[in-house]
Amino acid sequence: MEKREVIKSWFIGLQKSIITDLEIEDGEGKFGTEEWSRPGGGGGITRLLKNGSVIEKGGVNFSAVYGSTPDPIKSSFKTKASSFYATGVSIVIHPQNPFVPIIHMNIRYFELSDGNSWFGGGIDLTPAYVFYEDGLFFHTALKKVCDEFGPDAYSTFKSNADSYFTIQHRQETRGIGGIFYDRLPASDPVEFEKLWEFTKAVGKQFSPVYTQLMALRKNTPFGDNEKFWQLHRRSRYAEFNLVYDAGTKFGLQTNGRTESILMSLPPMVRWESNFAPFEGTPEFESQQYFSNPKEWCK
Amino acid sequence: MEKREVIKSWFIGLQKSIITDLEIEDGEGKFGTEEWSRPGGGGGITRLLKNGSVIEKGGVNFSAVYGSTPDPIKSSFKTKASSFYATGVSIVIHPQNPFVPIIHMNIRYFELSDGNSWFGGGIDLTPAYVFYEDGLFFHTALKKVCDEFGPDAYSTFKSNADSYFTIQHRQETRGIGGIFYDRLPASDPVEFEKLWEFTKAVGKQFSPVYTQLMALRKNTPFGDNEKFWQLHRRSRYAEFNLVYDAGTKFGLQTNGRTESILMSLPPMVRWESNFAPFEGTPEFESQQYFSNPKEWCK
Repeated sequence: MEKREVIKSWFIGLQKSIITDLEIEDGEGKFGTEEWSRPGGGGGITRLLKNGSVIEKGGVNFSAVYGSTPDPIKSSFKTKASSFYATGVSIVIHPQNPFVPIIHMNIRYFELSDGNSWFGGGIDLTPAYVFYEDGLFFHTALKKVCDEFGPDAYSTFKSNADSYFTIQHRQETRGIGGIFYDRLPASDPVEFEKLWEFTKAVGKQFSPVYTQLMALRKNTPFGDNEKFWQLHRRSRYAEFNLVYDAGTKFGLQTNGRTESILMSLPPMVRWESNFAPFEGTPEFESQQYFSNPKEWCK
Repeated sequence: MEKREVIKSWFIGLQKSIITDLEIEDGEGKFGTEEWSRPGGGGGITRLLKNGSVIEKGGVNFSAVYGSTPDPIKSSFKTKASSFYATGVSIVIHPQNPFVPIIHMNIRYFELSDGNSWFGGGIDLTPAYVFYEDGLFFHTALKKVCDEFGPDAYSTFKSNADSYFTIQHRQETRGIGGIFYDRLPASDPVEFEKLWEFTKAVGKQFSPVYTQLMALRKNTPFGDNEKFWQLHRRSRYAEFNLVYDAGTKFGLQTNGRTESILMSLPPMVRWESNFAPFEGTPEFESQQYFSNPKEWCK
């Protein structure tokens, strides 16, 4: 089997297993299924859950697209390669309870007809309320996966995430970061194997880490005040995705499937002008984490 | 008095008079006042109303800024002029009732130290529910103002607005348009006078047109269904402003005052995936207007 086929099959399996795990932890919600095909070649499986017991809106998407290389890809990769292949799994989960964090993961493989190929991906957490122990648990799990890949991997990819997930016009991060890596060259067979193992390890990490956070926080009682803060923080999530996120921008510019691309946007959002939490409140404490990215694992 | 001082004073007066008119029509809400100054020179008066009886969130802003020309302006205007002056009034009103349309207006004057100057501006209407008679009333009022300025002005500026206020990734407009014009050269004194009269006419038109629409629709009863549609359409408004709006992009890139720039965003927004209204419903009828810009005044 060709490499790309191996990857594609594994990604489809991962999508299924994550869906199963999330549905179990949610307890009520079920993911719908929408298969789509791309006019130029390939397609995907969009799986969306709305109004579950824990998940308010969640998407777990797989795609594998190919065909003649679109111009924006040619200029972005400075290549003349006539055809491309790209496959990936993308997840965004917006929970109901303000104490359960938003999570995002993307793992992807990209190949050009000139023989070059790359892996990219990342996973990051966006709590409205930051619990120190949850942040430590999340980053420790990621560090473990990264350490298997290379001694500097965690610190490099963690610092990438802190830069990438910054909302420049707010001078704050969208959450507490995670890891982010892009265009890691995979043309060399040894590099390919290392990166493929790493990609699988990142993907396999998703369910145990996130279902544990769901379980831990899903029954925490909340009121209007906590809901207000959640909707407020979601406005920052929407700003990041619409103004800065590279995948979103690229998708919209290349006439991608708008509904799949913007699936990442929160279900309900509140833009409250000139709002800042009072010192001493839990909201204020959480805001500090967004102003100064923390070294979770020293 | 220098031209720029005449314009600035008139803009400040317009801001005051619009605030008065909107507060009267709202009946309850009062605009707060925030004066700010720009480190490089100049400043503004931000006036914001939250949770009025008719207006859920409204901003009526004045600014006059100047100083050494920022690099993005130099490259955008292809100029080496060392200093600039810019003054304008910007308005966005998000009403409570889904039957009252969102309105946006901006009028501005821009001057460079090399002697070149320009006027720009526009006004456009974004109803969630489109009433034919409201659209006709709005566009007829704008056409009257434009006809005084020049025989082709309305058709040119109307068609500018249809292009400008398009959400490309949705293949729809954000509302029912209006007029939009930019960089109309004002260095010649005769042109300046014409443009200044036109700018004042656009500004003076705002209150009578919008307060009439507020009065007409503010008491229309509505339920959850209409509120859902309003929040849904507001998501398109947010997408347009964050992804395409030139003023927003420019402001965020030039480290403008984020809270003033993003004042235009709706207070509450809902992103519902894969949502489209059923044929035959008022929501479906309204959606048709966003898919095909209409010739209101033939």
